[in-house]
Amino acid sequence: MAKSEKKASPQDTMIELDFNNVMTHAVGGENGLKADDIDELKPIFTEAHKDLMNRRKDGNLPFYDLPFQTKDLRRLRRTAEDIRKRVENFVVLGIGGSALGTRAVFRALRPLFHNMLPRAKRRFPRLFVADNVDPEGMASLLSLVDPRHTMFNVVSKSGTTAETMSQFMVVYDQIRRSLGKSSLKDHVIFTTDPEKGILRTMAEEMGFQTCDVPAGVGGRFSVFTPVGLLPLAVAGVNVAEMLRGAAAAEESCTRAALWNNPAYLFAAVNYALRQKRGRNILVMMPYADSLSEVADWFAQLWAESLGKRLSTDGRVVMAGQTPVKAVGVTDQHSQVQLYMEGPQDKVVVFIASSAYRADVKIPHLFKDQKDLAYLGGHTMGELIQAEQAATAKALTAAGRPNMTLRLPKITPASVGYLLYMLEVATVVSGYLYDIDPLDQPGVELGKRFTYGLMGRPGFASFKADFQKGAAPKKKFIVG
Amino acid sequence: MAKSEKKASPQDTMIELDFNNVMTHAVGGENGLKADDIDELKPIFTEAHKDLMNRRKDGNLPFYDLPFQTKDLRRLRRTAEDIRKRVENFVVLGIGGSALGTRAVFRALRPLFHNMLPRAKRRFPRLFVADNVDPEGMASLLSLVDPRHTMFNVVSKSGTTAETMSQFMVVYDQIRRSLGKSSLKDHVIFTTDPEKGILRTMAEEMGFQTCDVPAGVGGRFSVFTPVGLLPLAVAGVNVAEMLRGAAAAEESCTRAALWNNPAYLFAAVNYALRQKRGRNILVMMPYADSLSEVADWFAQLWAESLGKRLSTDGRVVMAGQTPVKAVGVTDQHSQVQLYMEGPQDKVVVFIASSAYRADVKIPHLFKDQKDLAYLGGHTMGELIQAEQAATAKALTAAGRPNMTLRLPKITPASVGYLLYMLEVATVVSGYLYDIDPLDQPGVELGKRFTYGLMGRPGFASFKADFQKGAAPKKKFIVG
Repeated sequence: MAKSEKKASPQDTMIELDFNNVMTHAVGGENGLKADDIDELKPIFTEAHKDLMNRRKDGNLPFYDLPFQTKDLRRLRRTAEDIRKRVENFVVLGIGGSALGTRAVFRALRPLFHNMLPRAKRRFPRLFVADNVDPEGMASLLSLVDPRHTMFNVVSKSGTTAETMSQFMVVYDQIRRSLGKSSLKDHVIFTTDPEKGILRTMAEEMGFQTCDVPAGVGGRFSVFTPVGLLPLAVAGVNVAEMLRGAAAAEESCTRAALWNNPAYLFAAVNYALRQKRGRNILVMMPYADSLSEVADWFAQLWAESLGKRLSTDGRVVMAGQTPVKAVGVTDQHSQVQLYMEGPQDKVVVFIASSAYRADVKIPHLFKDQKDLAYLGGHTMGELIQAEQAATAKALTAAGRPNMTLRLPKITPASVGYLLYMLEVATVVSGYLYDIDPLDQPGVELGKRFTYGLMGRPGFASFKADFQKGAAPKKKFIVG
Repeated sequence: MAKSEKKASPQDTMIELDFNNVMTHAVGGENGLKADDIDELKPIFTEAHKDLMNRRKDGNLPFYDLPFQTKDLRRLRRTAEDIRKRVENFVVLGIGGSALGTRAVFRALRPLFHNMLPRAKRRFPRLFVADNVDPEGMASLLSLVDPRHTMFNVVSKSGTTAETMSQFMVVYDQIRRSLGKSSLKDHVIFTTDPEKGILRTMAEEMGFQTCDVPAGVGGRFSVFTPVGLLPLAVAGVNVAEMLRGAAAAEESCTRAALWNNPAYLFAAVNYALRQKRGRNILVMMPYADSLSEVADWFAQLWAESLGKRLSTDGRVVMAGQTPVKAVGVTDQHSQVQLYMEGPQDKVVVFIASSAYRADVKIPHLFKDQKDLAYLGGHTMGELIQAEQAATAKALTAAGRPNMTLRLPKITPASVGYLLYMLEVATVVSGYLYDIDPLDQPGVELGKRFTYGLMGRPGFASFKADFQKGAAPKKKFIVG
């Protein structure tokens, strides 16, 4: 085990989950939980834990072991280093799980204006994640990056994702026309299934470089695979440290005892609030610009894993909790009014940092203006922390359940810890809701209608289905 | 009336609200509405309309008349033109309503990578909106923009907003030290109350330029005042066209007849779904990268206006509907699984565009791969539109209410129309919920705790209150 991959020391990774403010002693009996509400879930967790550990041992839950793939990591870092030297732009063509982890960690760990900094200052290529087929967005991106200085990373396990493959076809054609077909392999790298699929075949035929999506790892659990690690390493994130943090989380999140396992407690508390206190909304509210896209990554993880119609034995359950992203302090001036006074239908999960990587001193100024002068001498770090604490306290005083995930500092290790912990929390929540957290059957119908409308062979009947049904009534259209 | 401010022609601004897919004929009796459900709200709308028009006539709802402030507009555009010539960066220091409208319209109407384009290509200054006190974010911004080439726009009606004023103090000090105190007035412009407040006094004493926030216009209704118009005009948005679109919306959104008024119908449908069908979540899902921040702007408008504990006569109602932002097609791969199969607790509002400002042709490629070749020959515009229609159809088939706001094209006029329409829909919804949509009492307690913690004179008792109460129990902290 290389030095940089050693077990993290507790001080620099350990994330604290403080859920005092969801308990009755904080928010009262009508809205809060008692320890008993959590204890009564213990039998489910005992079973779930046993099952999870067995499935892991049998190789059926490979996401658990991703922090320990250190051999693959060396190869990936060499690839990234090579790319870095050759290009100015690295563009991910991917959507959903192929995009969100990369976005979240890039934003968390690289400078806020990374892509706007001159090369000397940022030292690493610019990173773009193209996760939409908006023609305006795509045209803007293509006019911004010069293909001669750009590497495109096509990320699709199956190689048939319509959005990603459309982007790839556009890019392929552009490179072929501007640089010649023989240049394609210097500007395109695939992240795909290790064995099968269109991209794998194409890579073998045309000599494209590839990275593997390990078998059995779904998109929303892929941030610790090359799906996330390659672009992040290219952009200058210390991915070894990130995995070191995830490895530390693996330790705490595989503890059998519910009350000692932060991932299990996160799951238990949210489930109990959902079932007993009608909290069908989970607001994730980081107090840091850099963590804002962690909330987007989590929104996919939580929504797509737990939002399910059928239980494992086929009953209609329509499970799930709707994730909402908010950013502190910004959204205190947008959403907190609703959180304080609106329906009692949500739980707020703050993400706070005990220290910031930079601070800004507020100068002593305007001494005769008492409504401003008090700010002087403080730092912005103090202000944002005071506002987080104040908002938590105000919500609590209003009987609104909230909890805080506290990072010692935003580092590759603590971010790795956070993401891994939330992944385990999501998977174990599947047992609570009695649904499969690893599938996503609900997106198929929309895809089929799209295929039908776009003329994909085999989907003509969906085009016919699309056109069937009552025509829209004029009464219900207004302009 | 100047030529550019003439009434918009219907073709280029008229937004269509199609709510067929919330009706029983589309989603069934259990989840859908009948025309009767809307008709029975007519008496409330009759009263509401009368009251709104009276209040407007008495000058108490000035937001209604903002599209017609053409005299002020000429002065503002001159100011903007002067600033544009002098600086490379325009930085808004503002939060909540002082930031969100600017962000939304800038993103909608300027190129996606505006700030990354070379000056010759973008033609207008870069625009930044600093709406957080994250010290890392602030430090990054200050190291990016050279104060010699930057204008800072301090936006605060009261002049006491802690976040904005802290930022201002930092910037003030930086300019004073680097360029000298006499340069301050060349690099700072205030947007504030026309008569009172700290910024007004300071402007008079020190010669700062100012713009007015008209009396009686709250932050979340201020996008058509200099709060939004100044930065947008500086960044190259055609604000006259935007107001022209808002003026066209004023026509359709002040119609007395519920069934002819798109703003009233938007309000009625969402209210009926909330009250009769348990839809406590409203998802706004634009199918355009450029409209993504319109959903953030709307989230403040809807949440802060309608999320209220007390009715106008003092009953505890805890009203409101939680706005959620999603972006198509991106979030089909993140949130749509939940929308299709999760709890029946939401309505999805799509924003679609009938035409895009640019399109990208998908080339004919990979002809022997039938799972890809079908994409060739289409455009990305066709793909994104097919996916929007397919997602709406799939949701409908699953009994999930959804509606579509369709813009003919994304232009300054249609965006102005859209925002104005949503403002009227929000205000009239206040009558349905029987709450005051113009206040935000719920944010006060958190502010007071912050003031107490930061040592603002007069708030010591809130610091004491903050510290009171049970200490967190160790049992409910895990790491």
